[in-house]
Amino acid sequence: MVRKGDRVVVGMDGIRVAAPQRPRSSDDIFGFMSSGVSPEKPINHLIQDLAREMKNIHDQNGSIIFVMGTAMVYTGADEAFLDLIRMGYVQALFTGNGFSVMDLEKQLFGTALGMDKNTGKVRNTGYKSNIVAINEIWNAGCIREAIGKGIIKGGVLYEYVQNDVPFVIGGSLHDDGPLPDAITDVLQAQDEMRKYVQKADVCIICASMLHGIAVGNMLPSRVKTVAVDINSYVVTWLQDRGTTQVLGLVTYPALLIPILTGEIQRLSGMDTAIP
Amino acid sequence: MVRKGDRVVVGMDGIRVAAPQRPRSSDDIFGFMSSGVSPEKPINHLIQDLAREMKNIHDQNGSIIFVMGTAMVYTGADEAFLDLIRMGYVQALFTGNGFSVMDLEKQLFGTALGMDKNTGKVRNTGYKSNIVAINEIWNAGCIREAIGKGIIKGGVLYEYVQNDVPFVIGGSLHDDGPLPDAITDVLQAQDEMRKYVQKADVCIICASMLHGIAVGNMLPSRVKTVAVDINSYVVTWLQDRGTTQVLGLVTYPALLIPILTGEIQRLSGMDTAIP
Amino acid sequence: MVRKGDRVVVGMDGIRVAAPQRPRSSDDIFGFMSSGVSPEKPINHLIQDLAREMKNIHDQNGSIIFVMGTAMVYTGADEAFLDLIRMGYVQALFTGNGFSVMDLEKQLFGTALGMDKNTGKVRNTGYKSNIVAINEIWNAGCIREAIGKGIIKGGVLYEYVQNDVPFVIGGSLHDDGPLPDAITDVLQAQDEMRKYVQKADVCIICASMLHGIAVGNMLPSRVKTVAVDINSYVVTWLQDRGTTQVLGLVTYPALLIPILTGEIQRLSGMDTAIP
Amino acid sequence: MVRKGDRVVVGMDGIRVAAPQRPRSSDDIFGFMSSGVSPEKPINHLIQDLAREMKNIHDQNGSIIFVMGTAMVYTGADEAFLDLIRMGYVQALFTGNGFSVMDLEKQLFGTALGMDKNTGKVRNTGYKSNIVAINEIWNAGCIREAIGKGIIKGGVLYEYVQNDVPFVIGGSLHDDGPLPDAITDVLQAQDEMRKYVQKADVCIICASMLHGIAVGNMLPSRVKTVAVDINSYVVTWLQDRGTTQVLGLVTYPALLIPILTGEIQRLSGMDTAIP
Repeated sequence: MVRKGDRVVVGMDGIRVAAPQRPRSSDDIFGFMSSGVSPEKPINHLIQDLAREMKNIHDQNGSIIFVMGTAMVYTGADEAFLDLIRMGYVQALFTGNGFSVMDLEKQLFGTALGMDKNTGKVRNTGYKSNIVAINEIWNAGCIREAIGKGIIKGGVLYEYVQNDVPFVIGGSLHDDGPLPDAITDVLQAQDEMRKYVQKADVCIICASMLHGIAVGNMLPSRVKTVAVDINSYVVTWLQDRGTTQVLGLVTYPALLIPILTGEIQRLSGMDTAIP
Repeated sequence: MVRKGDRVVVGMDGIRVAAPQRPRSSDDIFGFMSSGVSPEKPINHLIQDLAREMKNIHDQNGSIIFVMGTAMVYTGADEAFLDLIRMGYVQALFTGNGFSVMDLEKQLFGTALGMDKNTGKVRNTGYKSNIVAINEIWNAGCIREAIGKGIIKGGVLYEYVQNDVPFVIGGSLHDDGPLPDAITDVLQAQDEMRKYVQKADVCIICASMLHGIAVGNMLPSRVKTVAVDINSYVVTWLQDRGTTQVLGLVTYPALLIPILTGEIQRLSGMDTAIP
Repeated sequence: MVRKGDRVVVGMDGIRVAAPQRPRSSDDIFGFMSSGVSPEKPINHLIQDLAREMKNIHDQNGSIIFVMGTAMVYTGADEAFLDLIRMGYVQALFTGNGFSVMDLEKQLFGTALGMDKNTGKVRNTGYKSNIVAINEIWNAGCIREAIGKGIIKGGVLYEYVQNDVPFVIGGSLHDDGPLPDAITDVLQAQDEMRKYVQKADVCIICASMLHGIAVGNMLPSRVKTVAVDINSYVVTWLQDRGTTQVLGLVTYPALLIPILTGEIQRLSGMDTAIP
Repeated sequence: MVRKGDRVVVGMDGIRVAAPQRPRSSDDIFGFMSSGVSPEKPINHLIQDLAREMKNIHDQNGSIIFVMGTAMVYTGADEAFLDLIRMGYVQALFTGNGFSVMDLEKQLFGTALGMDKNTGKVRNTGYKSNIVAINEIWNAGCIREAIGKGIIKGGVLYEYVQNDVPFVIGGSLHDDGPLPDAITDVLQAQDEMRKYVQKADVCIICASMLHGIAVGNMLPSRVKTVAVDINSYVVTWLQDRGTTQVLGLVTYPALLIPILTGEIQRLSGMDTAIP
């Protein structure tokens, strides 16, 4: 809404965003920003740098947003992520209906889209476990109610609720269900995400093309952003769409999260159960 | 809505969908269905088979639905696609806000996301051409109005309107704008798509993960479905999500469409401008 | 071999290769060189530019080298490529044992690795057709002998021999057989390739990671180089390995070759059978 | 070599390889074998299964072969791999000239292809560090001599020599140098690899298309084979080339090796420095 007295940019030259200068020291992982997309990086060392950076942000009460796709559930990466939430390293989660349903289905049936969470084999009655999970939540009213009633006793969304961390479930065209908590109007979902984006210091996008590009569109250039995806297209796409400050790691996010979590635990002098 | 007298499936065994048997003759491209995803196929011959199949469907007044992602515009594949529309080979289009904005931007400025449509170089004032395109349509009211007023004089959406072919622009979380014609509530967009899906004989999904999976979820098993994508994940994903009848072609849809169009023109005894 | 009187570069600063300046006009496809790797290009227009560039080189009696992987045979792209050879657009071919065996197998049995060349279905006795093809050539002595004896009556290698165009079959560790014509010592194969590389004006690498990187290592910086691959890693890899002058097209080479050939035929005022 | 008295298969029906039956219990990771290629697997649990399987093989004095591509060096995955060698989990290594040169370069200069091993930034004089490394080995005579003379004091090849584990460096067409230890004739390199393949119980292929397919061609069907690659094409390719017993993990091998190593250390009651 433009109001009288507002300053308005005119002319055809546009505005050039001056991204904050960052020291290009060898310790600063974000010194890599805007570098080319390549899987040929010393990834094991970059994860240590990222862990240090996240610990700094955390120790200064900064805000870390995670954006997560379904891969984070069916691969088992959610188990390490629970530790990150409990340790206070997650200030908001943006995700979709698919991730949320799988997270809930896993608590109810031990499956993700009917696939056993340990073996990856599809169970005989697996075809309906995600639909039943959706119905359970509708019966309870919403995710928070299902947790309150003891129907859901663990998992990522459970930890979010227990730790008072906000999450936004942005709907999309290919949703089954969806859950009552999914925001089906995309403009409304964008508005909800914008609330948290302004406070963010770091944004970590894992295996989520749709939600990753959505959040990329609204991130201020000062937010340190990391996109982790096995698919180099996603990282290229983010940069082509203008999120030039993104550090793209073409790797497998479901293995990165456990290593990252273990590294932060080690930096914090904690025991780590992660091998 | 369940009503008194409706027959309801009960028990835990589920329903097995019996996909229609198809003759596995060497002429029938859909004899390939459910085969593994591999880029190692005689693609040049498969396109000829697909052209023949589409001509048969067309000659019997069947219905062909296209689902298209943004790649179809910025690669120049839209130019051959215009011929397909004019020849009566397209009965509905499902796409997103990105494709639609680029198609309109191309008419107004000769660019797609600011990138020159012929050279691929980003123009100096290109950063704002897609926003200006969105605003032009809002000023006119909607796409049909903009065409009626002579603001938009060509392109894919123009041909759709001129040829009375319906299109559905399903919104998504990463949309800029969006256009007034984009349906921002995903459930409402799904309902709109379902209207056309029931009548479809063939569905061709080109470079569209989000809309492709969405339509895959609602396609009856009798609909002959082809998914064309450079990214083998998309094809695997469609099959993993239950659209098992899909024929996946891991190739570049922006080159397939011109070759396919030229082949149909040749089968129809028409001159073809496509090399 | 260093000889008395040779000038030798000393010191630690290295040599900077000054790539020839090229006019960055909108007509010059190689004005794109060194640009980022992205599938988001107006590929249909770039092919027209490439066709014009190749026609210029051809009309000035320049030298065009093709490097080809197995995909070019089993996809059916070889059929258009035969026209390019006959039209005088190919001055050398670098390929491997896999491509060569498939090309010969296709003439003898109509299959590639046992897969029917038209339908892509594996034939019952297909498992042995490539081994039998290798044995046929060994019986004849070598590829040229097999052509001379009328055993091989068509295909890419046949056209090469008929048109007196040299080819180098560089062996690799995963070869079956290999053919008697394959050079199994990699250093000797490199030497053989170097003979033709020095005369090259344009080098087009299609679906060949191993041979593509090999030739990339030895190309003078003045050679206009295009790498076409569905796999963006290959293009990135070439650039990361120092072949910075490469124009990378992340697309499907098996569809590009027919379109490119048709375009050159159209520019030459010839009839084109390619749709 | 066929000799008098040898039994020879005749006729056109071919031989069907009966792969050994394996119990499909939920504990047996190789129960997955021949399953489709998909990144959608519970990878974190599969790694635990693989660790258990490897510990069993190791405890029964079995033989584990690793096939490794260059990615294992520049990503820093080699650091965990050193532990695996020292713990006796590696009975042979098949690799190429690229991996070997980077491993040696890293010891001499702390770089891989001139890229700092910790930060991934290219050093000023980095362009020549891999050539200098090659020359150092030629000066010493070969890798073993360079280790004996104290020129190379660590790294993967150093551990191999110290632990008396054989390695085969199979040459390829795109090699720089190559090292004196690289076997430049591909048939001779195949022969050398065959010596170890017959004794193998498990074969783990990490980020190596060329050497992976080569070893896949010669593996007996009883050898439990795992191919780990970020690129799903590699895994599909291996299966399309007949290595049907392969378990394909579409993930990032450079993160899998540290997690796998830590898991084996945990199973063995050892401290693990891996987070």
